[in-house]
Amino acid sequence: MDPIRIAVVGVGKIARDQHLPAIAGNSAFSLAATVSPHDPGVEGVPHARSLEELIERGPAVDAVALCTPPQVRYDLAVQALRKGMHVFLEKPPGATLGEVGALSSRADKVGATLFAAWHSRFAAGVAPARAWLAERRIDSVSIVWREDVRVWHPGQAWIWEPGGLGVFDPGINALSIATHILPRQMFLQSATLEIPANRAAPIGADIQFRDTAGAPIHMDLDWRQTGPQSWDIIVETDAGTLKLSNGGAVLTLPSGVEHNEDLEYPGLYARFATLIRGGRSDVDVAPFRLVADAFLRGHRKIVEEFHD
Amino acid sequence: MDPIRIAVVGVGKIARDQHLPAIAGNSAFSLAATVSPHDPGVEGVPHARSLEELIERGPAVDAVALCTPPQVRYDLAVQALRKGMHVFLEKPPGATLGEVGALSSRADKVGATLFAAWHSRFAAGVAPARAWLAERRIDSVSIVWREDVRVWHPGQAWIWEPGGLGVFDPGINALSIATHILPRQMFLQSATLEIPANRAAPIGADIQFRDTAGAPIHMDLDWRQTGPQSWDIIVETDAGTLKLSNGGAVLTLPSGVEHNEDLEYPGLYARFATLIRGGRSDVDVAPFRLVADAFLRGHRKIVEEFHD
Repeated sequence: MDPIRIAVVGVGKIARDQHLPAIAGNSAFSLAATVSPHDPGVEGVPHARSLEELIERGPAVDAVALCTPPQVRYDLAVQALRKGMHVFLEKPPGATLGEVGALSSRADKVGATLFAAWHSRFAAGVAPARAWLAERRIDSVSIVWREDVRVWHPGQAWIWEPGGLGVFDPGINALSIATHILPRQMFLQSATLEIPANRAAPIGADIQFRDTAGAPIHMDLDWRQTGPQSWDIIVETDAGTLKLSNGGAVLTLPSGVEHNEDLEYPGLYARFATLIRGGRSDVDVAPFRLVADAFLRGHRKIVEEFHD
Repeated sequence: MDPIRIAVVGVGKIARDQHLPAIAGNSAFSLAATVSPHDPGVEGVPHARSLEELIERGPAVDAVALCTPPQVRYDLAVQALRKGMHVFLEKPPGATLGEVGALSSRADKVGATLFAAWHSRFAAGVAPARAWLAERRIDSVSIVWREDVRVWHPGQAWIWEPGGLGVFDPGINALSIATHILPRQMFLQSATLEIPANRAAPIGADIQFRDTAGAPIHMDLDWRQTGPQSWDIIVETDAGTLKLSNGGAVLTLPSGVEHNEDLEYPGLYARFATLIRGGRSDVDVAPFRLVADAFLRGHRKIVEEFHD
């Protein structure tokens, strides 16, 4: 089978750290081009300054991975789908739920694969956590996601703009795991969002969810954490405590710690190839919908200004 | 066929003005009970103070119409669905998208009908507007929904709380019409929400949408309108201008004004009966999803305090 010729659009930190190595490590793909108005791209690989330019001048590609900020992703995805290209959407899959819905319909219509990627679902501990929880009674869940925004998102102004999600940018990773490992649907009951006086997006959030059996799910999101960072999900069950830590990488069960290989982006690209070969899409908006519900329903509390 | 025995839960203004007359006028239904902790109900009809009380003591009902504020509707709907009752949800169908999704899954599982009602879709001009637009090229759309909140929602504190939607409570009616009559999906591009300094929900909003063919759709929502009120949708097309005014009741086409019978709540109950008899649900969240996107993506502007 010929490899899938893919272009990476938006050559920022996440593309260089994760996408390019994952593509290089998967023989189902060949990196056909990079696209960025700013970045020179990768030695020896054709580079275009825009997706229009790539479409006009070539080289031909079968698929694109959109690694730009979410605010501009819709138009790029439409351009790609018009040419019948398969589209990999970094998380979050768009700036609004409505545009992701519209992309999904469009992909179905042209018969292309659309993949809303949630990388944290491919962290090492997630699949075994899901399997272990499938047969348990869930009593309560605590999600603690506390990190230092200055370390992880230095100078990323777009993340503070409307559509950029603020602390929900990492928080949506936690939600992508929770919605995947918990056996029942979860939904929001109440939320407090802490918004810096000089920004549009939250720097902290305290959210109460529950699942459809009534189990409480508490989420503590904070971007002001210095020192040790936390990306933990703790699930109390009838068979004891499950703990997923390090963003899903380390799973601790009552029987001890499970060690598995970490496969986030390699896992995503393996899945993307499977979807393309099978002529299917995978657009699960559940994590994004929970974030929209937090903005819809949450109390807003204005807090201290934030400066990078 | 025996009539569907229905209980009206939440006997406020909308129940008295609309639901009770519509039920009385439809022989597919018989009003079996009313439920409200505050209200004495209707002469000659059994009354319960809570849905629990109704379920415990009877009379037996086949369906409930939930006319309470949206913040408490989920728990009521779950109680009803557990007993296999069919559920009519006033708009908006819930406080969050997630809980509506959970209800939808639950209704499917128990084989009950869940109906997310959008009364404005049954206004007299809406069906002919939809038919006329189906074959046109849409060039632009203007939605102007300007009303006096003191007249239409006097003292309704819940409407200003998180989950109460503020000016989107009437605005979602406009969106329920627009998503129904326009031939293509619409999604949000940008929004400014005006929030009174002493409230949680917006009193005004300016929103730019577009449809998937690129046509701009502008929405102007304002709750501070005194004097003449506006509930208008104007659609510019390749065949001239369509205007829906009075909240969808009056349709003006290039050929003149169309007069049709207004059937909002009678139309809803006719539809609910059809869904129940056919064993189907109808839970279209598109209007609610657009509102969530406005909260997710909108710029917030703090404006003058609002006092009833």
